[in-house]
Amino acid sequence: MHLAGTSKAQTFMNLNGSTSSLTALRIALVQMAVAEEKTKNVERAVQLIEEAAGNDAQLVVLPECFNGPCSLSANTNYVEPVPGESTAPLGDAAKKFGVFVVGGSVQEREGDKIYNTCTVWGPQGNMLAKYRKMHLFDVNMPGELVSQESSFFTPGNTLTTFELPHCKIGLGICYDMRFPETARLYAKLGCKVVLYPGACSMVTGPDHWQLLQRSRAIDNQVYVANVSPARNTNHSFVTWGHSSIVNPWGEVIATCEEKETIVYGDLDMDYVDKVRQMIPVLKQMRDDVYEVTAK
Amino acid sequence: MHLAGTSKAQTFMNLNGSTSSLTALRIALVQMAVAEEKTKNVERAVQLIEEAAGNDAQLVVLPECFNGPCSLSANTNYVEPVPGESTAPLGDAAKKFGVFVVGGSVQEREGDKIYNTCTVWGPQGNMLAKYRKMHLFDVNMPGELVSQESSFFTPGNTLTTFELPHCKIGLGICYDMRFPETARLYAKLGCKVVLYPGACSMVTGPDHWQLLQRSRAIDNQVYVANVSPARNTNHSFVTWGHSSIVNPWGEVIATCEEKETIVYGDLDMDYVDKVRQMIPVLKQMRDDVYEVTAK
Repeated sequence: MHLAGTSKAQTFMNLNGSTSSLTALRIALVQMAVAEEKTKNVERAVQLIEEAAGNDAQLVVLPECFNGPCSLSANTNYVEPVPGESTAPLGDAAKKFGVFVVGGSVQEREGDKIYNTCTVWGPQGNMLAKYRKMHLFDVNMPGELVSQESSFFTPGNTLTTFELPHCKIGLGICYDMRFPETARLYAKLGCKVVLYPGACSMVTGPDHWQLLQRSRAIDNQVYVANVSPARNTNHSFVTWGHSSIVNPWGEVIATCEEKETIVYGDLDMDYVDKVRQMIPVLKQMRDDVYEVTAK
Repeated sequence: MHLAGTSKAQTFMNLNGSTSSLTALRIALVQMAVAEEKTKNVERAVQLIEEAAGNDAQLVVLPECFNGPCSLSANTNYVEPVPGESTAPLGDAAKKFGVFVVGGSVQEREGDKIYNTCTVWGPQGNMLAKYRKMHLFDVNMPGELVSQESSFFTPGNTLTTFELPHCKIGLGICYDMRFPETARLYAKLGCKVVLYPGACSMVTGPDHWQLLQRSRAIDNQVYVANVSPARNTNHSFVTWGHSSIVNPWGEVIATCEEKETIVYGDLDMDYVDKVRQMIPVLKQMRDDVYEVTAK
């Protein structure tokens, strides 16, 4: 277990406990080992949600592709509707263990299109939000990494937030983190946390992943979490791991290596406010000269 | 002398030399020790421009407040028109030594307003561009750092670029680097280099300066240089130093500590194109969903 937080002493209880500070949010990043078999992955995800809830997590985040190995080619074994067999159990688990669950991503079929989709479930078991990956991983590094995610996925086109009692939270998936506009728009919408379930490659992971995460955090003075599957070198697409939490000052407050683990972090909403008062960038943007707008 | 560059073997000559590759640009960051007396600072700047030109620099960049100590209060000794006594000699030096000069910043008076202004001079001695700092350093960290730059400066409101034979270059000053929108707009305008003369504090410098610089570079796949005055602990505002160059992959390719020095870097425009082909984020922005626009 990896546990880190601000220096402030804080106590936590699950949302089904009798008291809960609305400024302190304990989150758990489930860097799970993903196997071939979909049903086993879903069972494992539910086990790890239970474990995280037992360690007082209030918000549990699964990685991109939690129900099957990430792949750079289409694999129709994993395509399903949302809600569906991989995601509905997350709602059941959220209710049973009294936590919020962010369901990494699954391959969602709607009509003749497939999306890379993240679902969010509340402690009453209901689906609070659904986000479809907006920036697909199309990169061309011959000899190192060539990916054309857009050849089998359709991109989403909707920024998505959801509300906890503590704060508003924005959603992205993996490659979305490279695009500063979406995190900026989430901050402008009032988010204090942005979550990026991801499955970063072994090529760009070491050089870029933490840098991008810290960039989004410092620019917008938000907590940023990225959540990866554990590394499996037998898979065709090998993931970097290193699920992490960065605070609004740009510091990594919780992280791990590549193996299966749960990373815990205590997010302090008062600290977000404090950083924003000290260096008030969100009030100092020059909307008279430039502007980031959602359409 | 600090010299670093890409791994590619390259040869350089001054622009007044007989040959010059248009993909290879040698820049020099003049981290100069700034004294009290304005005329001495201008003389020292010209000396260091000559030294940099002698080391084959084609573009020489001075720091923010190169003609007098940075201060958190108004000091009318340093206020002057542009062009004026601190900036005109930069044009003379650019012509004499056959280089481009980016004149950090001076306190520019126009009418009853004072701006924090950067001038750019070409090897014919003419002023190519003038940029007025757009985001003023108003921060409130009681006991550590309180600054209200807007109490004596008026902010500029114009994004500013200039052209070298090699590439288009965007300008910012110091605190501007915290705002991702302007670097993004420079990239959208076709810039391959963004320069930030700055004078970062000892509070935010260690935690944020390199991170912000790398953020702007990786998001936009541009070279980013920041140029500070050398540290002088006798001044009321003590600067962090650490003038640096970051490449479009987000790597620091040249840097220094806090003392007076010149940091040299060899910028490779082909490498900018290569990174942009490998990870084509500037083509993948979702202008149908969000957009950064200049007004």
